[in-house]
Amino acid sequence: MNIPSATRDSYPYQNEPIWSKSEKAIARTAFDAALGRELLEVIQRTKQMAKAIQGSADLWDLEHYLTERRKEIDRKYDYRYSRLTQVFGRLLYEKRLSAEELHGLGEDKLKSIRSVANFLAQDVA
Amino acid sequence: MNIPSATRDSYPYQNEPIWSKSEKAIARTAFDAALGRELLEVIQRTKQMAKAIQGSADLWDLEHYLTERRKEIDRKYDYRYSRLTQVFGRLLYEKRLSAEELHGLGEDKLKSIRSVANFLAQDVA
Repeated sequence: MNIPSATRDSYPYQNEPIWSKSEKAIARTAFDAALGRELLEVIQRTKQMAKAIQGSADLWDLEHYLTERRKEIDRKYDYRYSRLTQVFGRLLYEKRLSAEELHGLGEDKLKSIRSVANFLAQDVA
Repeated sequence: MNIPSATRDSYPYQNEPIWSKSEKAIARTAFDAALGRELLEVIQRTKQMAKAIQGSADLWDLEHYLTERRKEIDRKYDYRYSRLTQVFGRLLYEKRLSAEELHGLGEDKLKSIRSVANFLAQDVA
């Protein structure tokens, strides 16, 4: 059985920007930095909450807090190139990432990222 | 439509012991004491674990620990009179309850409780 040539469909996401090697390095560094900072925030808050536990309600509040943070972080930090402009847009909007950390990405990507951040800001306002 | 007399079936669990008022008071005190001690243990362990968190693996270990403890405690501390001899048997086996704390319960109940504890001990051996 011959499999038909799929040349036309070989890159299924034709509207997605292609990330150069240097852009990938910048993206990875920025992504890891934001994730590291967010984790540090959760760790510090966890230590505070644990220290203040007085009874079972506080204990299960901490469990709930951790479960919610884990789910949110899993959802938010999606390192697929097809998702990265959305991810960075959100991180920019949440001020978890500075524009400087994205310096070196192509203007096409920066434009998409800023557009996501602006959209989220307007959505809240 | 007449509903047939249900006198014969009015107490559906005929093999279950009936708990007197004083037995219920003893049971409630023993149950709450064991639960309180177990919660205190989890709280102390949580504070230790939180203090020692160095990275995200430790953080999610703590979440997992709390979720497991909550489920286990929910399962174990079932204050229904139809379940109490099993519950106390397990707590006795786990040394979370002393025989003295059950002092005052009828011999029928103590026998059932000891029997559950012995069964669990043999099950492990």
